[in-house]
Amino acid sequence: MDRTFASDNYAGVHPEVLAAIAAANTGHEISYGEDVVTERLQHVMREHFGERAEAFPVFNGTGANVVALTSVLPRWGAIVTTTTSHMHTDEGGAPEKTAGLKLFPVPTPDGKLTPELLETEAFGFGDEHRAQPLALSIAQTTELGTLYRPEEIRAIADAAHGHGMIVHLDGARIWNAAAALDLPFRAFTTEVGVDIVSFGATKNGALGAEAIVVLNPDAVDGIVFLRKTAMQLASKMRFLSAQILALFEDGLGLRSAAHANAMASRLRAAIEGVPGLGFSQATEANAVFAVLDNAVADRIRDRYRFYDWDRANGQVRWMTAFDTTEADVDAFAAAIREELAR
Amino acid sequence: MDRTFASDNYAGVHPEVLAAIAAANTGHEISYGEDVVTERLQHVMREHFGERAEAFPVFNGTGANVVALTSVLPRWGAIVTTTTSHMHTDEGGAPEKTAGLKLFPVPTPDGKLTPELLETEAFGFGDEHRAQPLALSIAQTTELGTLYRPEEIRAIADAAHGHGMIVHLDGARIWNAAAALDLPFRAFTTEVGVDIVSFGATKNGALGAEAIVVLNPDAVDGIVFLRKTAMQLASKMRFLSAQILALFEDGLGLRSAAHANAMASRLRAAIEGVPGLGFSQATEANAVFAVLDNAVADRIRDRYRFYDWDRANGQVRWMTAFDTTEADVDAFAAAIREELAR
Amino acid sequence: MDRTFASDNYAGVHPEVLAAIAAANTGHEISYGEDVVTERLQHVMREHFGERAEAFPVFNGTGANVVALTSVLPRWGAIVTTTTSHMHTDEGGAPEKTAGLKLFPVPTPDGKLTPELLETEAFGFGDEHRAQPLALSIAQTTELGTLYRPEEIRAIADAAHGHGMIVHLDGARIWNAAAALDLPFRAFTTEVGVDIVSFGATKNGALGAEAIVVLNPDAVDGIVFLRKTAMQLASKMRFLSAQILALFEDGLGLRSAAHANAMASRLRAAIEGVPGLGFSQATEANAVFAVLDNAVADRIRDRYRFYDWDRANGQVRWMTAFDTTEADVDAFAAAIREELAR
Amino acid sequence: MDRTFASDNYAGVHPEVLAAIAAANTGHEISYGEDVVTERLQHVMREHFGERAEAFPVFNGTGANVVALTSVLPRWGAIVTTTTSHMHTDEGGAPEKTAGLKLFPVPTPDGKLTPELLETEAFGFGDEHRAQPLALSIAQTTELGTLYRPEEIRAIADAAHGHGMIVHLDGARIWNAAAALDLPFRAFTTEVGVDIVSFGATKNGALGAEAIVVLNPDAVDGIVFLRKTAMQLASKMRFLSAQILALFEDGLGLRSAAHANAMASRLRAAIEGVPGLGFSQATEANAVFAVLDNAVADRIRDRYRFYDWDRANGQVRWMTAFDTTEADVDAFAAAIREELAR
Repeated sequence: MDRTFASDNYAGVHPEVLAAIAAANTGHEISYGEDVVTERLQHVMREHFGERAEAFPVFNGTGANVVALTSVLPRWGAIVTTTTSHMHTDEGGAPEKTAGLKLFPVPTPDGKLTPELLETEAFGFGDEHRAQPLALSIAQTTELGTLYRPEEIRAIADAAHGHGMIVHLDGARIWNAAAALDLPFRAFTTEVGVDIVSFGATKNGALGAEAIVVLNPDAVDGIVFLRKTAMQLASKMRFLSAQILALFEDGLGLRSAAHANAMASRLRAAIEGVPGLGFSQATEANAVFAVLDNAVADRIRDRYRFYDWDRANGQVRWMTAFDTTEADVDAFAAAIREELAR
Repeated sequence: MDRTFASDNYAGVHPEVLAAIAAANTGHEISYGEDVVTERLQHVMREHFGERAEAFPVFNGTGANVVALTSVLPRWGAIVTTTTSHMHTDEGGAPEKTAGLKLFPVPTPDGKLTPELLETEAFGFGDEHRAQPLALSIAQTTELGTLYRPEEIRAIADAAHGHGMIVHLDGARIWNAAAALDLPFRAFTTEVGVDIVSFGATKNGALGAEAIVVLNPDAVDGIVFLRKTAMQLASKMRFLSAQILALFEDGLGLRSAAHANAMASRLRAAIEGVPGLGFSQATEANAVFAVLDNAVADRIRDRYRFYDWDRANGQVRWMTAFDTTEADVDAFAAAIREELAR
Repeated sequence: MDRTFASDNYAGVHPEVLAAIAAANTGHEISYGEDVVTERLQHVMREHFGERAEAFPVFNGTGANVVALTSVLPRWGAIVTTTTSHMHTDEGGAPEKTAGLKLFPVPTPDGKLTPELLETEAFGFGDEHRAQPLALSIAQTTELGTLYRPEEIRAIADAAHGHGMIVHLDGARIWNAAAALDLPFRAFTTEVGVDIVSFGATKNGALGAEAIVVLNPDAVDGIVFLRKTAMQLASKMRFLSAQILALFEDGLGLRSAAHANAMASRLRAAIEGVPGLGFSQATEANAVFAVLDNAVADRIRDRYRFYDWDRANGQVRWMTAFDTTEADVDAFAAAIREELAR
Repeated sequence: MDRTFASDNYAGVHPEVLAAIAAANTGHEISYGEDVVTERLQHVMREHFGERAEAFPVFNGTGANVVALTSVLPRWGAIVTTTTSHMHTDEGGAPEKTAGLKLFPVPTPDGKLTPELLETEAFGFGDEHRAQPLALSIAQTTELGTLYRPEEIRAIADAAHGHGMIVHLDGARIWNAAAALDLPFRAFTTEVGVDIVSFGATKNGALGAEAIVVLNPDAVDGIVFLRKTAMQLASKMRFLSAQILALFEDGLGLRSAAHANAMASRLRAAIEGVPGLGFSQATEANAVFAVLDNAVADRIRDRYRFYDWDRANGQVRWMTAFDTTEADVDAFAAAIREELAR
């Protein structure tokens, strides 16, 4: 299939990741995580996230989110998050259905929580009638392609910690955030109060691997058991760890994410100001959220695959990936202009 | 303790309910629902809700809601409800935690869903990434003391059915609704498209008994098993059934609810227009939602027990019960006026 | 219905319990447990179970078991119990389905676990592949009508504690045990290593009330939240507490249980040695487990209601209750003899 | 690490599987299963399992088991399985904890259920007090390395279907079974009454991929939703499908499994009759269950990694994999003989 603007998970595996998998395929290794590749991953994670960091590879992003949040919450816990968060809208109810996690979703203009928005649901502590809002979950980058600055995360983390809440960061696109901010991971996680991260790799060129990265071990309990009961424990774990490690080698992950971000910027620049087209969100990473007539969107879609975001108001999402080329973008932008001009 | 304006569940048991319990205490009966009292309850429920109605007594309202909704939803189902609904804010997360029920809460001005509001979450059918919104839950009366007219329920039930959704009515205060509307139960349930009801009794003078009333048996599966696994199956069920039956005898339930409603109206009338006092909701049943300075509210509370609803904007809830007297109301109104005048 | 030998929950409510409910029906009380009756219950429980004891009234025995065990186990915990335990065979899967509790059921000859039997499942601590067997649950009296002596409980509790396990006692028929042992509750619970008890009342003349009694508060976490999410929190809790309290007044509970036990002994004595009849268990409390031809059992059942226990080998269960009379027993024994003689 | 006899999941990825992954890495593909590789997998599965077969790739065996069983059971369902089954002993309680699946484990001499053993737990249908035993789960090969003949599966499937139960086959090592029986898959699944299969690949040379194969679509409901909520839906699914497909190419899967089986037979033959060594199970596939003194086992383990099965009676498990060589076996057998002779 030609390259699309549907999702960064339509892309395949980066060749350097495939090579890393092959390189890990040497003889026997202890299964379930006691292998040498996973051990090396721990070193790298500590380098990037700080000395207390520990990584727990899992299969996918929903798994990472659910295990991470379960590990920081008692059975009576709840999570304050956004109404547009992946865990509320795109995980099929997995948090509720497999782990009994209650969500308090908060509407936001741009997918970003603030201390003020947090307060609308962070109350009722100690009252048994209210599921206890003991965790906050933010996404970086957000599901709307926007970005938190480190000081924004610091502010909301401080507010959350003030309530005794734990701070989770859904980093399905954490590489895009690091590239866009041009900052090391720790600068917008460990150092600004994040306790636990869902660390993405799949959307940035891996075959299928994510990791929970615990930054604050005091906040977490029983994660090895919870990963198992959540059915996220890989027997041949070395091959998950190898994929994630590969992104840290020769700057692959940052290189790929920076490229994807640049392609989204290129797209936005190429179509900004075209009549009939608006934008519902800033383009800060690898997604362009545009607003246009449904009929026009459908005509463009006949030529390039992408998703509606909210048909009721004409929002669409155009995503770039590590393998999107400048030529892809230019041709797509031309198609958009053509169909808008018809 | 003196009578309060805190909640209708601060009141005790109506003497006629106690007498009905004693009357059911004759010799042995088959346990778990095959008793003669529960059989009689079925007759009465069919009379009031229609020939297809069947009642399943349970212990409490959260149990009724959870069992009812679980019985109409597949494991991948979700519920569209209001952000102020009891199941979202006051059940400690029981729907999510014990039954894996996913909620899509919708903000409303008055605790009431409309077809337009329903549309904001009733989408994504067939998409495995979205928990399937296959049930709608409304409360009658609502948690804000407001009331749906039959035609309003008809409109939203039609909209829900148009999506293949099941319609649940949380009737924790269904007696207050029937009294306020001056209509038989079926006129605002069975006849306007409600499929299943949580039928309340405790807040209207019972000791502790509610029932799930199935109106549309085609919508429901396995409810006897689900009541058991939800730990809501009473061994000596006759004594639950007897409480509910008592409310149907000599008009006890309607009498009690109409009285409670009248006491709320009397309170509202007695304080309407007093400087410093506003009202955030219409008073349509047995609750008055008032807005006043927190400090004043606290002084009133030194004299009479009641609950804040939302301290951020000075909302309080004053509730009446079957045993609230005119003298109680008048004394309370006087206290409110006094403290506001200080 | 005439009195049966089917179950102690076919019996109604003891008149003294009904009187206690009526006596608690005085004006308003704070709901959900902050009432004066529940406060009095705490005093009585401390008297009987020791200074650290705290009671949490719930609706039924399954609720007591599930909340108790959830409160002492992490999400990855499992329970070693018997294959005949109520929670494995008669709770419809509630422990697994509402609370994710994993059971390791152990076969026993008489419904009683021993240190040796415990060892068959108490292993794999720390291994994420095995649900962690961190609780032991025994029933007193057992589901087979047998009885643990205090020293037997001490032995198995010591073994469990040696593994870091918590000890739960399912006391659905704890009054029958106390009466049969002629010992105070604490002598076979608190003083021999039990950490938490499901304290029964319904089967001994209450309308419907049980309590979780925490003996070792260090073993328990979040029980008020868990009672709520398990849908076992009564709004008008005073009426549950009043029922349990009534059993402690004027020796009512012990009187009733001792009588039921005596009726079972009388039955056993009246039919012991009759040709064609055997017994699969000792008669130590209020149940007789007999073995006879299915056809004969069915003929007896035409005259008196009771349950098969295991039709494959002709086991039946005959139970007595607080209201079983000597005349009832004598007539039933005569019927058994008659049908066996045919 | 040198090759071990610990587990078939210590082995890496077969080079032909790696090549298949690389071959699937061409441009964009629709994510979440609508890709061309997964489409091809469906064709191959229908060829091997029959025209009604449909495959649902998942990440791991626990995921396959849990999703498969959830898709065939109502919320009140339970599963009759063996006490040695993977889902009871090695899945950390995932069936209970993430899906509320109740297990009725039955002791067996050899890991195999029979119609007679099934009857010990297949009862109580329609009784709400008993979790409804509506599925049977057998493993092929079993966790004890034994094998069902097709007629044995037919017999137990008939018995299960006679009760209205669904038949699940845990085929984590289904390739070893096919190789050992020298029969096509359908001969011991579709054609003898199996309704749904957990189809293994990882233990037979894949990187990490399994599939649920539905043989009887009438028995299954909502599996695409359940795979999602169980967090087993891969975004880049083509790479899971490619692994499984690879096993069907050029006889790779059968070749690998037959080799592993032959290595186990070679090991058994090489040590049969050695003094101090017994065997607790027949060696019918790729596992040897031996019985020897714990101290001797520990000395052998100093030289070769493997697992105790039951230290209480000296049982150990020695497993072979697709990459075990004859030289590996001969050296290991020599080590065993040496240590036994000391």
